[in-house]
Amino acid sequence: MGVREEVIALAQRAKVAAVQLATLSTEVKNKALQAMAQALREKAPEILEANAKDMEAGQAQGLSRALLDRLLLNEKRIEEMAQGLEALVSLPDPVGEITSMWTRPNGLKIGRMRVPLGVIGIIYEARPNVTVDAAGLCLKTGNAVILRGGSEAINSNRAITRIISAAAAASGIPEGAIQLVDTTDREAVHVMLRLNEYIDVLIPRGGAGLIRTVVENATVPVIETGVGNCHVYVDAEADLEMAEKIVINAKTQRPGVCNAMETLLVHKDIAPAFLPVIAEKLRDLGVELRGCEYTRALVPFAKEATEEDWATEYLDLILAVKVVNDLEEAIEHIGKYGTKHSEAIVTNNYLKAWEFLQRVDAAAVYVNASTRFTDGFQYGFGAEIGISTQKLHARGPMGPEQLTTFKYIVFGSGQIRQ
Amino acid sequence: MGVREEVIALAQRAKVAAVQLATLSTEVKNKALQAMAQALREKAPEILEANAKDMEAGQAQGLSRALLDRLLLNEKRIEEMAQGLEALVSLPDPVGEITSMWTRPNGLKIGRMRVPLGVIGIIYEARPNVTVDAAGLCLKTGNAVILRGGSEAINSNRAITRIISAAAAASGIPEGAIQLVDTTDREAVHVMLRLNEYIDVLIPRGGAGLIRTVVENATVPVIETGVGNCHVYVDAEADLEMAEKIVINAKTQRPGVCNAMETLLVHKDIAPAFLPVIAEKLRDLGVELRGCEYTRALVPFAKEATEEDWATEYLDLILAVKVVNDLEEAIEHIGKYGTKHSEAIVTNNYLKAWEFLQRVDAAAVYVNASTRFTDGFQYGFGAEIGISTQKLHARGPMGPEQLTTFKYIVFGSGQIRQ
Repeated sequence: MGVREEVIALAQRAKVAAVQLATLSTEVKNKALQAMAQALREKAPEILEANAKDMEAGQAQGLSRALLDRLLLNEKRIEEMAQGLEALVSLPDPVGEITSMWTRPNGLKIGRMRVPLGVIGIIYEARPNVTVDAAGLCLKTGNAVILRGGSEAINSNRAITRIISAAAAASGIPEGAIQLVDTTDREAVHVMLRLNEYIDVLIPRGGAGLIRTVVENATVPVIETGVGNCHVYVDAEADLEMAEKIVINAKTQRPGVCNAMETLLVHKDIAPAFLPVIAEKLRDLGVELRGCEYTRALVPFAKEATEEDWATEYLDLILAVKVVNDLEEAIEHIGKYGTKHSEAIVTNNYLKAWEFLQRVDAAAVYVNASTRFTDGFQYGFGAEIGISTQKLHARGPMGPEQLTTFKYIVFGSGQIRQ
Repeated sequence: MGVREEVIALAQRAKVAAVQLATLSTEVKNKALQAMAQALREKAPEILEANAKDMEAGQAQGLSRALLDRLLLNEKRIEEMAQGLEALVSLPDPVGEITSMWTRPNGLKIGRMRVPLGVIGIIYEARPNVTVDAAGLCLKTGNAVILRGGSEAINSNRAITRIISAAAAASGIPEGAIQLVDTTDREAVHVMLRLNEYIDVLIPRGGAGLIRTVVENATVPVIETGVGNCHVYVDAEADLEMAEKIVINAKTQRPGVCNAMETLLVHKDIAPAFLPVIAEKLRDLGVELRGCEYTRALVPFAKEATEEDWATEYLDLILAVKVVNDLEEAIEHIGKYGTKHSEAIVTNNYLKAWEFLQRVDAAAVYVNASTRFTDGFQYGFGAEIGISTQKLHARGPMGPEQLTTFKYIVFGSGQIRQ
């Protein structure tokens, strides 16, 4: 069987499973999640052995230290994956929730009920924990999942998928609910991208290249995740102590993630008081600064920022800094260079706070808080499958609800259309 | 300027307009809608003159009578378009609605606020009234719209767009908010399909061929509309009088639309009592019947249904009829041949009603009512831009709310991530 036929056969199994999963009780799904967690713990040695193969191959291939760290599994990380599954148990099951219901003049009662999306394809890169997270969240929400991980993690992903899907099946989950595309052939991805008949939605998780490939070639609907060129704007009326805390947190607490700040915008009236101080603190924390002309006048050790810097998601301890004339210029800069992910203003001025909230077009807009909060757990969703940067269906952190759609259920007593 | 450059320039204007539209007050938008309605009435002669050109060209081209009827405008139809705009005025403005807000343990207040999608591209076929409907609904919801109508209606669409966009601009709506792709060159559509930088969503409205072209070639997110292979299942425990009313209504009240019934499923226990009676009534109403073997035994004048009939959306006075053994077989048939649009059961049995509602995967599932109710006006949305048959973002009738997305607005007091 060729790659194409294999992927289609797998997707057909997923579709059959999805029909059964859609009406499975919360109890059965929760028991399966517990069994999957238990199986991960019991079979940790199998996973570690498989992971050792991936690590060895990765080292031989010369993968970067950062990539190898993402790839690495150990007892602690496996325990975290198991705990992640258990945490899903206590979350409410969104499926079957009737979010509204109304009665029409003719007596028809129309309700809007949450239902699973169906079959979800997840296309991701190195980290094998995504395999468990995605499988768990899709199961909790009654969706079948087709996992296509990075080739570097193929052995780890195989072991993990084998273990959790067997545990799920033993708990009454239909076969085919959790499947891995068990090949490193890229053709498999291209087949997935156009399987509209069997796959309801694709969620790519990874670098900009992966996401572009998926968006450009998919006919299956895609939820785009990822790129975050996030800004913090420190207004003239900011509390400077608060601004300092937020700027340092947004840049340095975890610089390699999409909700970290990449450009700092500072109102010109406050720049002389604020910039030299924050610049030194950031430098002490290892941050390289790249500033506009005015920034460099105030911060002699800042490098020159080019047009490219305003558009770059560094994902690193580098920060672009620009002094702006007013709120208007800040909003315009964000509109021009932002990626509609997370944007923050620091101000004590009520009108400016509202203006920023209203006018900045992004998944999450903050007043006096760090952009780092754009996260399913931080928002209280209890889980996260990624952060959507598109506007259709899901925007920002995607929790269990974002893996559902709805159907209208209509109760009549013989109504016909006039 | 080539077609490609023209479309890009137009889309850039739309994007600029969208930013301003997003924060425009409901009052300004409503006044513009009224002005647009008034302008349509005052300039009806211009529209009729342009339409006469389209009708003449259509006749010369040998367009079908049905197509010519869709293309035709007259005083009455223009008045209806104007009234459609006025009806939008009284609808609530979804933009700015905060649908939920919660406080996190760290004190962050997170709200979910409706915002416009941005720039919406509508690609549609013959009927020029879509030009007005779509422009009105997009304006009401703060979106810029790029209209690409069928080439048969180009003169009508030009006149209409010129009149309503001038009226809108005179009422304070930014230039570029309502634009027509003023060429019949198909290349224009292909450019639109991949303009992710400027267009946020595409909504194709028309036949299966148009929709397929858009889905297969677009990189811009698409909301699929359209195909409805809808079923009515008459259960053994149905009220036969009610079943008759519903079946006749679902098939004949307006057979050419997507929510009309295409296949009738009848439980075997009730088939001998129900089928001969309903078959005669349907025949008297001009409906051609195509039945399974058992149907033909009960209804001698029914033609033979082939595998293809179960999968066909006739959009005509033709009905496929199948006798099924039980609810299970009905649900399976619908799962196999349905297009997830509108499905109905007629039954007095509570358990079967719930089972059907739970298990049938469609945008709208009905108990004891006609499938013809799947419609934005019938659902009480006050307007409709189409009926989505996909699962992402919008499902079923799309009213004003479905033309919005949301953003999270987060109120902090200096919170940083730990």
